[in-house]
Amino acid sequence: MRNILLTIAYDGTNYCGWQIQPNGMTIEEKLQMAFRRMDGSTVKVIGSGRTDARVHAEGQRANVKLTSTVPTNRIPYALNANLPSDIVVKAAMEVPMDFHARYSALGKTYRYRLYIGKFRDPIERNHHYHISEPLDISKLKEALELFKGTHDFKGFMAAGSSVKTTVRTIEKIEVQSEDLNTLDIYISANGFLYNMVRIIIGTVVDVGKGKITIKQVEEALKNQNRSSAGHTAPPQGLFLEEVRYKLNDCKNKETLDTSGELY
Amino acid sequence: MRNILLTIAYDGTNYCGWQIQPNGMTIEEKLQMAFRRMDGSTVKVIGSGRTDARVHAEGQRANVKLTSTVPTNRIPYALNANLPSDIVVKAAMEVPMDFHARYSALGKTYRYRLYIGKFRDPIERNHHYHISEPLDISKLKEALELFKGTHDFKGFMAAGSSVKTTVRTIEKIEVQSEDLNTLDIYISANGFLYNMVRIIIGTVVDVGKGKITIKQVEEALKNQNRSSAGHTAPPQGLFLEEVRYKLNDCKNKETLDTSGELY
Repeated sequence: MRNILLTIAYDGTNYCGWQIQPNGMTIEEKLQMAFRRMDGSTVKVIGSGRTDARVHAEGQRANVKLTSTVPTNRIPYALNANLPSDIVVKAAMEVPMDFHARYSALGKTYRYRLYIGKFRDPIERNHHYHISEPLDISKLKEALELFKGTHDFKGFMAAGSSVKTTVRTIEKIEVQSEDLNTLDIYISANGFLYNMVRIIIGTVVDVGKGKITIKQVEEALKNQNRSSAGHTAPPQGLFLEEVRYKLNDCKNKETLDTSGELY
Repeated sequence: MRNILLTIAYDGTNYCGWQIQPNGMTIEEKLQMAFRRMDGSTVKVIGSGRTDARVHAEGQRANVKLTSTVPTNRIPYALNANLPSDIVVKAAMEVPMDFHARYSALGKTYRYRLYIGKFRDPIERNHHYHISEPLDISKLKEALELFKGTHDFKGFMAAGSSVKTTVRTIEKIEVQSEDLNTLDIYISANGFLYNMVRIIIGTVVDVGKGKITIKQVEEALKNQNRSSAGHTAPPQGLFLEEVRYKLNDCKNKETLDTSGELY
């Protein structure tokens, strides 16, 4: 038996999120089905974490304990032939048997894409959050700075989730612009609470619109009250870009392409 | 009665193309419905030309003879409120009564996007042509050069279309790369035959793959035989970027945004 770590990209538009659930199709279920179709393998797919309905991934990670004899470097091809066009396995590598895609993760990077324009963009509509009002980008960036470092993000978590601690460390925030209308916000942290990125983004968008002041964001971070933060940005702008692990002595590293490279 | 010229963008993925037809939903029909919902207006939507199923547009143009009293600069907003999210009217301007979106057109620009990568890209899958084999880009560009200028493009037209002449002039071909995997090919001409761009692209892709030689492309342009050209590239990589008119003295020019600017 091998423990195989997969790097997966998907368009979340037509799914009820990552995790298997009774009421709709999910990415996890499609992967399970692909293993079954590949050679009858029945596996439990352990994702690095859930993504919500309509959220996308460029570098989701999952591990599976596999008895199949398919060579590790052929697994992406074998699975992709059995996956729909909106899911792709970009890489597979053998990892130690005690490796766990969620518990072994050191951190993640999410990207959130804003599209600022008078009219909606029909072609990219499922891959960004359309803002039709003017946005003060420098204020938005100023607000983003406040989230860097270690904070109790309790006020930036959706209600109903149970976690041991709501303290997380944001290691890096980067803002990139592909063109005048697009703003890509990359947030890297050692972990994320439920809806944390979307509430941070909603909050800084509210700051950019002048609905919330920088001072109110500082207070929201201090008082840990969800109602002090801004709105929850919609799911379709969110991309899970990368999940980081420490993996020095793994076999089959050559099966990873550059976009799926581990470090 | 006014004659109104619209600039329209759309994602063609979920449509049976531009032109109204009995067996499925089209962009033209959605626009007609939007006028009816706006204020009961019944209009004939005259497009600059058809686009096929799954083909997209950033700058399709259409004119309508309108008795409605909605101010010209409010028309985009009034229509967009009544259009699905994958169609948007970006601009409206009043043009002379004898203006005709098809007959008055001086030329068009199409963009065709290639995605070169070992694995498919699930997020942009409906907006490019995925090439998984290695492609000799310099050969592809060399082949593209041959199409510049005035030629009889009879060999680069899908069967079954009836036109007076198959001679067209390609005024400009530009190749741009957003990143290592993406190739955007812009082709501007005074007019295009049915499937002309897709057959040109299929042919230069075949050259890039080494399936067709440069010499064979030269011959295909000379002998005007469809079977000498390459394959027809799939629809989802094609974008109608722009339709050009001579419009010096039109009212309401200020309603055009930069992306819809006329010249």
